[in-house]
Amino acid sequence: MQPLPPPPPPPEMPPNPPAVILVRPQLGMNIGAVARAMLNFGLTDLRLVQPRDGWPNPEAGPSAAGADALIDAARVYGSVADAIADCGLTIGTAMTTRDMIRRVTSPAGAVAEIRALPGRCALLFGPERTGLTREDLLHCHALCTIPSNPEFGSLNLAQSVAVMGYAWVMAHDAPPPTWIVNHEGPAPQDELTGLIAALEAQLAENGWFNPAPGRSESARRMLRNILTRPGFTGAEVQFLRGVVRSLANPRRRRGDQADQ
Amino acid sequence: MQPLPPPPPPPEMPPNPPAVILVRPQLGMNIGAVARAMLNFGLTDLRLVQPRDGWPNPEAGPSAAGADALIDAARVYGSVADAIADCGLTIGTAMTTRDMIRRVTSPAGAVAEIRALPGRCALLFGPERTGLTREDLLHCHALCTIPSNPEFGSLNLAQSVAVMGYAWVMAHDAPPPTWIVNHEGPAPQDELTGLIAALEAQLAENGWFNPAPGRSESARRMLRNILTRPGFTGAEVQFLRGVVRSLANPRRRRGDQADQ
Repeated sequence: MQPLPPPPPPPEMPPNPPAVILVRPQLGMNIGAVARAMLNFGLTDLRLVQPRDGWPNPEAGPSAAGADALIDAARVYGSVADAIADCGLTIGTAMTTRDMIRRVTSPAGAVAEIRALPGRCALLFGPERTGLTREDLLHCHALCTIPSNPEFGSLNLAQSVAVMGYAWVMAHDAPPPTWIVNHEGPAPQDELTGLIAALEAQLAENGWFNPAPGRSESARRMLRNILTRPGFTGAEVQFLRGVVRSLANPRRRRGDQADQ
Repeated sequence: MQPLPPPPPPPEMPPNPPAVILVRPQLGMNIGAVARAMLNFGLTDLRLVQPRDGWPNPEAGPSAAGADALIDAARVYGSVADAIADCGLTIGTAMTTRDMIRRVTSPAGAVAEIRALPGRCALLFGPERTGLTREDLLHCHALCTIPSNPEFGSLNLAQSVAVMGYAWVMAHDAPPPTWIVNHEGPAPQDELTGLIAALEAQLAENGWFNPAPGRSESARRMLRNILTRPGFTGAEVQFLRGVVRSLANPRRRRGDQADQ
């Protein structure tokens, strides 16, 4: 026999773990199982968006199997936007991109990005039956696809969280992706939301939205989509707010310039 | 923005996946959830050792969520030894080594070893409540510890299988561990079992086992322990069987040598 390799070092729980956000989770049992998987991998920030059966849910406790602190500390939100307000990078788990233009990454790639950022980040998981909707994914900077059998791609909610948690712990010595180096990272989501809201308000005031049924909603989705995808920094968001303000309220009209 | 990396290639399900062996699983629901996690990662060989509630179990179907083919094809065994008879490498998942001398590896290390071997390999998972016993672990060549929070190490059965399945799929481009290169790999387990049985029988015949209560069992465990750990090849097992035969039945006694 050749010499055996030494045993692996004891696991290290990386600092600054991402929030795990369950969007419209259905079964309390699954929320508990998610908490268990989270805590096993050092993830502690559990957030729930519109849990179907309300919160707290007594069915979550048994499957949490001791991870009760996470259940007790879970925060409930009325919308995805509220839940990710303090997050600079939100990555949604999805089997498909649902025809959106979004960067798609692997679990290892997703956690490497999160590791490279100083602020709070989030992993978004959809409801058991349907996964994240196109509307939910509009809030995500990137999508993460857990590799799966082309002929059977299906994990339950807590299994998916366990895989992401494992990837998170294993990322401790992975190099950060080069494209994010020297990059201050995306702005907290509420800054971006502020930009989008300001832009929408101004466009509405300017009568830009088409009043035909559905057209306005479609345009709002498109705005969120194209403004979320780039991952603007805080400075860039402020810059764009200035652009919007300036477009809407010119200091002077073109004809006035000669007067200056 | 710097350029974004290209999307990851579609996942490839590696060939020759290991068997997943559940030892004394308790809940049918968990067996179904294991099947779902397995099939998602291209693992298809499900084996059950003494399932508590018998088999088939109608509670397995719903949580399999479409992975019914695995449930239907699952094989039931009366012992761990039977379940791993055709396996050349058996790796047991365990949080601790329970004071045994065994190589401990990570999920990535475990699957890299499995990828490097041509024959059938097995991943062994213990019952929900207690995990694998020391007795079960005696059948394993190595232990695999899923990294976990030092203050909360706990995953449910299907979560553990999901993590191992993910590691399996992600191993496709990992280099095999160097120590196994140029190594034909361990013998199928039934060959090793044959060696152990022959040795035990001979020792019993020779009156080697201490008749005091528990002493014989303790000695048998020690035999299995020290003979399983090295991962003997088929040729080595045959060699050792010859050694045992020769020790028990010398062709001639020392005094006869001069006659030759």
